[in-house]
Formats: sequence, C-alpha cells, structure tokens
Amino acid sequence: MESKFSINYHLTGGETGPEGEMPLALLAARIIEIATLHADSLGVGYKAMISDDQAWVLSRLSIEMERYPKIDEDYSIATWVETFNRRFSERNFEIFDAEGHTIGYARSMWAAINLKTRGFGSLDVVSAISDVVIDRACPIEKTPRLTDPETADKSLAYTFTYRDLDFNRHVNSVAYIRLLLDAWPLDFHDRYRAKRIDVAYIHEARFGDTVELRCCDDGGATSAVILKPGDEPIPVTRMKISWEKR
Amino acid sequence: MESKFSINYHLTGGETGPEGEMPLALLAARIIEIATLHADSLGVGYKAMISDDQAWVLSRLSIEMERYPKIDEDYSIATWVETFNRRFSERNFEIFDAEGHTIGYARSMWAAINLKTRGFGSLDVVSAISDVVIDRACPIEKTPRLTDPETADKSLAYTFTYRDLDFNRHVNSVAYIRLLLDAWPLDFHDRYRAKRIDVAYIHEARFGDTVELRCCDDGGATSAVILKPGDEPIPVTRMKISWEKR
Repeated sequence: MESKFSINYHLTGGETGPEGEMPLALLAARIIEIATLHADSLGVGYKAMISDDQAWVLSRLSIEMERYPKIDEDYSIATWVETFNRRFSERNFEIFDAEGHTIGYARSMWAAINLKTRGFGSLDVVSAISDVVIDRACPIEKTPRLTDPETADKSLAYTFTYRDLDFNRHVNSVAYIRLLLDAWPLDFHDRYRAKRIDVAYIHEARFGDTVELRCCDDGGATSAVILKPGDEPIPVTRMKISWEKR
Repeated sequence: MESKFSINYHLTGGETGPEGEMPLALLAARIIEIATLHADSLGVGYKAMISDDQAWVLSRLSIEMERYPKIDEDYSIATWVETFNRRFSERNFEIFDAEGHTIGYARSMWAAINLKTRGFGSLDVVSAISDVVIDRACPIEKTPRLTDPETADKSLAYTFTYRDLDFNRHVNSVAYIRLLLDAWPLDFHDRYRAKRIDVAYIHEARFGDTVELRCCDDGGATSAVILKPGDEPIPVTRMKISWEKR
C-alpha cells in the first residue's frame, strides 16, 4: 500500500491554453484523475464502492498555484490522504515542476453517495484507507465556507450538453470550472491568472439542465454560484477565484 | 530516429463519457497529441517549425473505430508517417486494446502555415521526416472530399469561448468535433456511436467568433459544416460522421 502516490506528466501543445500555460480546468481534471488512480491502486476506488451500491463524490476542491506548468514542460503531482472517517476523506496534492520544486498545492474532500437512495453513503467499505492516512497537513488554507454572492455583476445562462457529462451520467466536476472561466474574455485571461480556486459541490446537474451562473467581483477575487432556476433556486456549485496579475 | 512511435494510455473514470467509453473528442485529442510528441521526439515538431516562423496545422483527420476503450481499460496508440513532401505529410495511427488487438485506425494530413503571411508554408525545414516514412498504408479509406450539406436538418449557433482556445490562440482542432457531437441529445448517443468521423479543417476560428453549425442526416451518416456567417459565409470545418447502433 503506497501512502504517497505520484504521477509524472508532460504538458503537450494540444493541452496548453492561449497563454502558453496549463489551463486550470485541465489541472483540476488531473487532480481528480490522480485521486481516482491512487484509490484504485489501493483497492478503495470505484470498484470497491460500486460493489456496495455507492460511488465517490467530490465535495470540495481548492487549488492554489505559485505558477502553472508551461507548454512542453514536465510536471508531477503527488497525493496523500490527510484524514479519513465514516463520512469524509480529505486528500491533498502537491504539484511539482520538472526540477522537483513545488509550484502549487490542492486540497479535496470526498464523500460517498448511496446510489439507491441518492443520499449520503458510508465510507465503511473502504476503511482500508485508514492505513494510508499520513499526518501531513497541506500548507494551503482549507476550503472556506462559500456563500452566494449578494449581488451579481454578471449573470449568464448555460445549458449542459453532451460534452459536459461524465461516466456517472452527471455533469463532470470540471465542467463547472470551465463554465466559470468562460465568463471572462480572452484579454482578461491574458492579464490575470487564477492564483487560487475554491469549489463546493452541492447538487448534481444533468444533461439539458439550464443553469444560471452569477458572479460578483470583489477586488482581486470573484465569488460565484451556479443555480438551477425555479421558485426556490437550487445551488449546484459555489466557487471563488482569487486573481493575480500576470 | 524511431519510425514507429507508440504510447500506452489508461482510460480514467474522469475521462470516460456517459456510455462508459472513451469520448470521440478525447480520442481525437490523443491522436493529435501523439502526432505532436512523435514529431517533437524526431526534432521536427513545434520548435523546429517556429524557428522558421512556421507552425504545423492539421488539415484533415479521419478516425474509424471497431470499438472504443472502456472505463479503466488500458489502450495504446501507434503512429507512423506514410508520405512526406514539401506541402503535406500524411500520418497514420493504429489504436490497440490492452491485449494488443487493433480496435481502430486514423489518418491525418498535416501542412505548414507561414506565421508571417498566414498562408501555406513549406515543410523543407523538417525534411528529416523523409527518413522515417514507412511504406505502410492505413487500411481505412482516405478522408473523402467533404462538401457542404445541401439542406440543413439542424442549424445551431455557437460562440467560441475561452475553453475552446489552444496555445496558438485559435480554436482547438478538437473543439469543432465537440461542437458537432453536442448537436445530439444524450439519448441519441446512448443508442448510436460514431463508427467513423472525417474532418476537413479549412479556416481558423477565433475567440468570440459566432458560427453556425449546419447538419444534414442522410441515412446512417451526418454531413456537417461550421460556417462563419456573412454575405459570403466562410466554411471553417466540414465534417462527416457515420453512426452505428450500439
């Protein structure tokens, strides 16, 4: 059982964004990927959960970067489990450049969903995770309690399409991040990069759901919520991005 | 100089589509990626071209699959160059399952763009490719001449956003395929899979361009064109998908 697990990657041209760097959405995808692969390698992944009619769900994600890998650069991601209990498991990540220097960290919080009741499940079936918990905190702050922006500087409608779906037949966790980043034009991204993103996953969205993205800029940060409209709008995802000048 | 180049992959949960298989758009991305990595390894990639104020552009792409990799399945892609001249290079691909059985093939045609004139460039600067040409044809048909559909069963407007851009600051070659696949609802994709796709890349689209996707279904296939509207609409990409029942 490998308590710490890491993968080497190479940022290919086709994966690189218009600023010559790794897009934040791809980084989020890699982080979720290595979490999945580590869990699989420990026998506590998808197969272990589905045998108990459960699935892993990502509840919170925070990423904070000093810098992003550049085109054609090698990088690596290491992951370890910091806490584990019946309801939640916290998994951390460290991102390195080719020379082994740390360029960022991420935190994530995972829970189980009971696929029969669609409610919270139990992590008892994967309790072997306890054996790989490492008492090493992640040096970035935990995901804060995210609230809905009081006012909306921006309000955009979006309907989830085929490209947004994952194998659970719900909207992919990364699709919400892509949607948020799309709220700014290219010249904004050319001037600012995301220093940190916090995401709280609250309700699942599905194919064909039309949602409203509401954003409020507050100095160097943006608070956002994705809502399913209705008499009582349902929050799908709350997010916060801190920007820094390039 | 490795004439034949291959990479092993693993289809992770986060990459898998709602039918439990590799999405066609991801397969196209992998095919472009391995072409890029092989060219880089031969010293005839991005760096060689940019030193001559040129860049590689994908002109045509055809993919034909017997089946797609499934969730958590290992697969590999091999690539080789079939032809090379001053203007074009044809590069083929074979896709294998974990046991080494062929599950699909792809063909691609690449040209050079002169970054100063934005016109056709010359492949003289990468003539070392001649040394790795393998006289092995790809068993699938070449990309046919694609024409605009005469009538449009479907017409959809789409505006390219930040997510669609690549490091050349143009719309990513894969974004057009994603846009086409999004023209059908989930239940269609649940019933049919793309047996083959042909793509002809004609003009580049950029951030903020609003295009029209026109599709015409003809029995088991769909012809499509992405147009920049105007007095004389400009074709951006022509595509054809052949469907098969799952």
